Amino acid sequence: MRAAVFDSGVGGLTVVKSLIDHNFFDEIIYFGDTARVPYGIKDKNTIVRYSLEALEFFKNFDPDILITACNSVSAHALKELRESASFPVVGVIEPGVIAAQKRLEKGDRILVIGTRATISSGQYQRLLRHQGFTNLISLPTPLFVPLVEEGILKGRIVEATMDHYFNGIEPDAIILGCTHFPLLSEALKGYFGEQTLLIHSGEAICDYLEQELGITPGRGTPELKLFASESPERLKEVASRWLSSDR
Amino acid sequence: MRAAVFDSGVGGLTVVKSLIDHNFFDEIIYFGDTARVPYGIKDKNTIVRYSLEALEFFKNFDPDILITACNSVSAHALKELRESASFPVVGVIEPGVIAAQKRLEKGDRILVIGTRATISSGQYQRLLRHQGFTNLISLPTPLFVPLVEEGILKGRIVEATMDHYFNGIEPDAIILGCTHFPLLSEALKGYFGEQTLLIHSGEAICDYLEQELGITPGRGTPELKLFASESPERLKEVASRWLSSDR
Repeated sequence: MRAAVFDSGVGGLTVVKSLIDHNFFDEIIYFGDTARVPYGIKDKNTIVRYSLEALEFFKNFDPDILITACNSVSAHALKELRESASFPVVGVIEPGVIAAQKRLEKGDRILVIGTRATISSGQYQRLLRHQGFTNLISLPTPLFVPLVEEGILKGRIVEATMDHYFNGIEPDAIILGCTHFPLLSEALKGYFGEQTLLIHSGEAICDYLEQELGITPGRGTPELKLFASESPERLKEVASRWLSSDR
Repeated sequence: MRAAVFDSGVGGLTVVKSLIDHNFFDEIIYFGDTARVPYGIKDKNTIVRYSLEALEFFKNFDPDILITACNSVSAHALKELRESASFPVVGVIEPGVIAAQKRLEKGDRILVIGTRATISSGQYQRLLRHQGFTNLISLPTPLFVPLVEEGILKGRIVEATMDHYFNGIEPDAIILGCTHFPLLSEALKGYFGEQTLLIHSGEAICDYLEQELGITPGRGTPELKLFASESPERLKEVASRWLSSDR
């Protein structure tokens, strides 16, 4: 099976890492729109337009499935991508909500964090409420994206930024609604305590592929092809760091 | 006279404010490439490509001059813009260096801050060295851009970020090599002390227009036309706040 993975930049490699760890696919075609990153500060029309352009790119590879690793794309362009694709298109939001449903009680306090575009779409909130969760806080935390991009994953800036966003919030679980945020897992656990459950798009989508779509894991290591709209060498460099770290 | 002002997003309005305050032009056509902002994390080829696309847009308005408010554009695409334009194209880097030359001694410690793209171009450093300045520190300070975009202009995050970048540096002057940074002037003065001279692209370009190009100030208030590649209403909202503050 050949999977296409679309992201606004390099962040979607956190999802690719999960896909590789589970060996779902024989081949993964990754495209990061690095020339126009970030999407999370842009509006719906722009995100839809860029996503449909990426779809045209992927069609050349005849994939069996398209996974939108980027939460901002999943929040705003999934319907349009599905209307234009002849293969299944899977976002990361529904899998994240299903993961919450399996691991949390309805009364648990859930904090959803993401880009401005993702949070303003209201998609996580709507789906979580539909599943009966009532104790929700959703927060755009846009500064986390450049912090991760700069490799600043702990220390005073991160702590001050968490205080800025999270003052007084005590969640039972956090949905990491942006591909960059798993890299802040340690800092978030340090801030909220080890007991706080973190829901990670990469892990959530792997469960979804297996349990909802019946795709079986455990093939050989997939062949990974990396494309970017600028600086593909930077994407490859990040991939070699992120994907190899604990393999 | 009709001026075209190009920026990657809304930040260039800090330059427009100076142009309006001096009443250099009868008409200002502003284009912010908000659908692809920020440029400062992108590579030279991408910045050149986007700049030449913006130039095509401006040609329809038959401007007398094009001002690239964005330092990343000024650093990477000025030559290409000049080759393709039939009107003068002025960047913000040479004016910034001329302002330094007029206001500083050769031995003064100058700190140049900007985006990764601007600093890695080495343009400020090369021109300053050419003018005889030897005591230079240049630093990419990319986190300042999203901080300003988020309206976080003081407080713990800003202080921690300044400590992160500036630990141990004691400059006599700072060149604010990004349109966003004038909004951090107060925080920078607080951090480095009131005696630290801040050189602002908007002010520097006004001196340049008058003294180097012989454009006389003091016309009536210019007519301002605002264009953006997405969310023009957001650009107009920011303009109404930034441009009216002390007029």
